[in-house]
Amino acid sequence: MLAFPDRLEAAVRRRGTPVLVGLDPRWDMLPDGLRGGDPGDLGARAGAVETFCCGVIDVVAPMVAAVKPQVAFFEQLGPAGMAVLARVIAHAQRAGLLVILDGKRNDIGSTAVAYAKAFLGSSGQSPWGADALTVSPYLGADSLEPFVDLACQRGAGVFVLVKTSNPGGRMLQDLVAEGRPVYRHVADHVEALAAATAGRCGYGVVGAVVGATYPEQLAELRSAMPHAWFLVPGFGAQGATARDVAAAMDPRGTGAVINSSRALIFAFRREPFASRFGPERWQQAVEAATREMIEGLRADTPAGRLGDS
Amino acid sequence: MLAFPDRLEAAVRRRGTPVLVGLDPRWDMLPDGLRGGDPGDLGARAGAVETFCCGVIDVVAPMVAAVKPQVAFFEQLGPAGMAVLARVIAHAQRAGLLVILDGKRNDIGSTAVAYAKAFLGSSGQSPWGADALTVSPYLGADSLEPFVDLACQRGAGVFVLVKTSNPGGRMLQDLVAEGRPVYRHVADHVEALAAATAGRCGYGVVGAVVGATYPEQLAELRSAMPHAWFLVPGFGAQGATARDVAAAMDPRGTGAVINSSRALIFAFRREPFASRFGPERWQQAVEAATREMIEGLRADTPAGRLGDS
Repeated sequence: MLAFPDRLEAAVRRRGTPVLVGLDPRWDMLPDGLRGGDPGDLGARAGAVETFCCGVIDVVAPMVAAVKPQVAFFEQLGPAGMAVLARVIAHAQRAGLLVILDGKRNDIGSTAVAYAKAFLGSSGQSPWGADALTVSPYLGADSLEPFVDLACQRGAGVFVLVKTSNPGGRMLQDLVAEGRPVYRHVADHVEALAAATAGRCGYGVVGAVVGATYPEQLAELRSAMPHAWFLVPGFGAQGATARDVAAAMDPRGTGAVINSSRALIFAFRREPFASRFGPERWQQAVEAATREMIEGLRADTPAGRLGDS
Repeated sequence: MLAFPDRLEAAVRRRGTPVLVGLDPRWDMLPDGLRGGDPGDLGARAGAVETFCCGVIDVVAPMVAAVKPQVAFFEQLGPAGMAVLARVIAHAQRAGLLVILDGKRNDIGSTAVAYAKAFLGSSGQSPWGADALTVSPYLGADSLEPFVDLACQRGAGVFVLVKTSNPGGRMLQDLVAEGRPVYRHVADHVEALAAATAGRCGYGVVGAVVGATYPEQLAELRSAMPHAWFLVPGFGAQGATARDVAAAMDPRGTGAVINSSRALIFAFRREPFASRFGPERWQQAVEAATREMIEGLRADTPAGRLGDS
């Protein structure tokens, strides 16, 4: 199997866009038609979430390279929700999508190994079988090693939180130590891991989560981590625009996937899509919103050059 | 329902010990008699893990205040493992134990709310129904709020990672910013949250994970967080002794729970318990090892005063 960074690059080139569709299936946001039954019945909720996520996947699979399920919204539905997560991941992969699982896991030693084995690798290798997983860096270098080792073995990827998109992220991440902020210390470590695991495309098995809500830091971090794929949250619902995220990409239009979740999957709830489609045609709203995001990124970022070569 | 810090204090006093038994059910470490069947069958593995964890709980319930299941080892077994986790938590609570779930979760906004709802509160309120959850601080203050809010509403608790027991934890946690290490910045925030949510016992809904492997920092952090319950990992298998953890407790012997996992639950694999009991009598080994730890803490820490009042 090709290394994850090369698979991601090929997928982004094939679809001609860095759009990463986030699957944040908040039950209370689902179209009314899917929310029948007893709201206290977690099994019924999980079933609705599965229908919804698979419906989103069917629409976006021909349009984008990858999806990002947010584990919390499946975990909130209990064991039934976690079983649905496995089926949603498998459905996405059968549809040709890469799956970057947003779990922000981490721990030390054999516990980190257990998390890595739970999520990374193909479905025959791990229960959930994701192509990549987001992990938190607070526990330090040795906590990241088991994820990186297993990702290398299994053709999977790891995205380390470097700079998050929320205002409160500054509390710890922007503290200045030894002349540079904490997030730069993390970035330097990520770059070392990425350089050491670089695939044919020049990017490594280890990538970075860098929020779009701080554009100047996005440019700084792009320079600091030339070998790291970026996963960029914060587009759309959190306020960042195409121009804001342009600096995350390399001049060829690769090197970053740009995530939008609620603004795409719940597009039927916002204008202009609400008026055009309404809740019954929620899948058409997903398609139109995704197309709008793809076109916006083509117009205002290096993603416009993805079709050139 | 009483606030979590008061429930924890009452339980520690009732049992006369701060020992927190960690449930890290690594399948390859289980007694041979429990590991029958096809090792590739995750359902069978999950069944063995359930039998083992419930067997540990039955032994330690009369001896200690709380157990700490490590989510990763259940998650590694897929959806069946997560269903077993819910049953193990319920079994522990029926046996009178508090359950501090070690998941090291976190995220931002509505996603943090989803994690909190997944794990915190009684079994009628959340799918897993734990009494408390460990969370990671890298995403900052606003990421912790949803956990604290829900914990206050549901009589549950939150333990924030402050200083972890692994060597690599120093990479980020020991960076010095504005004259003090990053972990002290986290500690100051935890103390503010703990003071604001203090129960009758003087400790708050928000506690701190502070590794036992750095005894001098344990004392420093005890002073810095007078309102925070400490969850202290690193005892036993990771090398810390009773004298090392004494500084985590207040003079009455409360204020900290001291975790040991492998050294207790897999005691049948180490001397002197291996010779005395062997793998068939693994439950007696758990009991003997737990008793040894309880007595060690009574002899060399303020826990010896727990029976006084």
